[in-house]
Amino acid sequence: MKIVKQTLYLVFVALLLHVSGNAQDNKQVINPSTNIRSAKYPQILPNHQVIFRIKAADGKNVQIDLGKKYDLVKDADGYWTVTTDSISEGFHYYSLLIDGIAVADPASESFYGMGRMASGIEIPFSGGDYYALKNVPHGDIRIKTYYSTVTKSWRRLLVYAPPGYDINSTEKYPVLYILHGGGEDERGWAMQGKTDMILDNLIAEKKAKPMLVVMPDANMGGSGFGEDGLKAFENEMKQCIIPFIEKNYRVQTTSKNRAMAGLSMGGINTLYTGIYNTDLFSYLGVFSSGWIMPSQSTLADAQYDFLKKNNSRINNKLKALWISVGGKEDIAYKNCQTMLTKLDELKIKHTYYDYPGGHTWPVWRNDLYHFAPLLFK
Amino acid sequence: MKIVKQTLYLVFVALLLHVSGNAQDNKQVINPSTNIRSAKYPQILPNHQVIFRIKAADGKNVQIDLGKKYDLVKDADGYWTVTTDSISEGFHYYSLLIDGIAVADPASESFYGMGRMASGIEIPFSGGDYYALKNVPHGDIRIKTYYSTVTKSWRRLLVYAPPGYDINSTEKYPVLYILHGGGEDERGWAMQGKTDMILDNLIAEKKAKPMLVVMPDANMGGSGFGEDGLKAFENEMKQCIIPFIEKNYRVQTTSKNRAMAGLSMGGINTLYTGIYNTDLFSYLGVFSSGWIMPSQSTLADAQYDFLKKNNSRINNKLKALWISVGGKEDIAYKNCQTMLTKLDELKIKHTYYDYPGGHTWPVWRNDLYHFAPLLFK
Repeated sequence: MKIVKQTLYLVFVALLLHVSGNAQDNKQVINPSTNIRSAKYPQILPNHQVIFRIKAADGKNVQIDLGKKYDLVKDADGYWTVTTDSISEGFHYYSLLIDGIAVADPASESFYGMGRMASGIEIPFSGGDYYALKNVPHGDIRIKTYYSTVTKSWRRLLVYAPPGYDINSTEKYPVLYILHGGGEDERGWAMQGKTDMILDNLIAEKKAKPMLVVMPDANMGGSGFGEDGLKAFENEMKQCIIPFIEKNYRVQTTSKNRAMAGLSMGGINTLYTGIYNTDLFSYLGVFSSGWIMPSQSTLADAQYDFLKKNNSRINNKLKALWISVGGKEDIAYKNCQTMLTKLDELKIKHTYYDYPGGHTWPVWRNDLYHFAPLLFK
Repeated sequence: MKIVKQTLYLVFVALLLHVSGNAQDNKQVINPSTNIRSAKYPQILPNHQVIFRIKAADGKNVQIDLGKKYDLVKDADGYWTVTTDSISEGFHYYSLLIDGIAVADPASESFYGMGRMASGIEIPFSGGDYYALKNVPHGDIRIKTYYSTVTKSWRRLLVYAPPGYDINSTEKYPVLYILHGGGEDERGWAMQGKTDMILDNLIAEKKAKPMLVVMPDANMGGSGFGEDGLKAFENEMKQCIIPFIEKNYRVQTTSKNRAMAGLSMGGINTLYTGIYNTDLFSYLGVFSSGWIMPSQSTLADAQYDFLKKNNSRINNKLKALWISVGGKEDIAYKNCQTMLTKLDELKIKHTYYDYPGGHTWPVWRNDLYHFAPLLFK
């Protein structure tokens, strides 16, 4: 373990010599909150262009992939630099490409997304601060381990507990179960999604009721989008997650105090588990999703058939079926519209919300911000 | 954000087509728990050699830096492969070097360490399972935000709450405050350290008392190892962290129910804050640390002078001053021995524990496992 020791020693020495790595050369630029603490780059310009600068003396081809690929240019000291186009506010995944190999940028925090540890960059908001860290009462995020009798393995879930949960020791709270998308896991809503900040701020403004938000791992192995995966997750929710939460937390246990939502793949889980279990949930949120045509036609047809036979009961049970999409640029847009047309045909009550930004976290944060206030009224 | 969308779409498609990325080609090899869920490599052989395999068609030089650097060899399909020497059990940082640039391996979980997001690999234990996830009652890890009046900023700390904390709603618990090393942050003890597993298992076996473990961020800006940084952290502990914990958690508030420990840089913080505040703490743990000579001679001399003047009071107040090091291969070994000699001269009671493994997390996990049972008896 010789070099680990040397590396730690270099950290020792670097910290001894450290003056202020965060000092700004230029007051007009800022470091995103996603930078690791000593990183001077990336830097964000006032117009939201981003400057990336990476030392890679021996690289032959260095790019940043931020939706669009940018070629970095090398200077005589071995630093590669580029200034991007203006990037929209909020969280964006990105990759560093070294000789075509996609890796995380060592200068930024990494997040589990795109099926691997990927870099994230947080562009400051100009149009609203609903997920800012403010001087309001704060809840917390709890990392909890439970044994799944479905997968026969230990699994992890995250729980947002609202401000006052530990103090108001008799109050019982309603619960929103919310799911990440494909290639993500139980960390998505807490880390990329800023669920705690969004809820803290909504609760402080009395726009949303104090609630627990449960963030499970919806990856059940096998085919995430096939019926085996969807059915396995329905079983996980009913047999493991809901009983675990209701045993270990002070929560309301009636259907009118349970909501379920999810983004992308998690939206399909919500459609599958939620629609078939309106005795368990009174509120469903489907963000940037819809049955994927034609690969999920059979699943969709079975569900539409179920909806047709049960439409008055479902309309009666559900207090909200809230469906959103990130504008026409969302990869789920077409599938979502197909589903909406079908719901209209079947006379299933629903609310549709469209917000530009595509299939991205800025859209899903905004979805949570608009969905949470509708719940448990 | 075009390619982010495309990337997520590829994840969609990959998941649709996914059969079983975790299937083993060979029953003798295992995937470490640090692999991301679909990664087939790294693989660990029964003798703890590790096979790394990375697709990098356009790379010209690919290495793994695991303490020792290993050159990977490219095959005709663009895969680079190497089999390492046998690696000792537990958690190890490592890096992927592409053309000399150190980045995290996309196939493994990333951890904040070495001053950046670095890869970690968990080698299964053969000699003990004290940090295994077992069928015992489990506590949780809570991510909490607080406002620091010292740094004038919002900061984050992690809290381990023992099993039963939410249920035994009148019991008050003792608290261990434990600090990460240089280049790490408040996540170190929770993620790399497996504090929750170690405490869950010790508590289940009644080897340690149920306690809260508070994991603050000890990075105070400026020079981490200079007196300004050490003093700033002492202020942070006394003015912010301890009051915050004692206001928001059900904890005992006497000195005999407070302990402080830290590794490497966090050990220096413990020496500085702990020795000067024996009215606050009855137990101190200094892991892989000691005053760094000669750069910290002035600090050390001032402290030895303080110890000399107060030795009977300090011996009386402290129920344990527990000092450990990761064997002679620990980079802190020499500084630690210098300090031990001085403590003997000054007749300061202390306990020394030596465990081979160097300046690494396997050593620090073992330290916590041996230190926690001594507390609050």
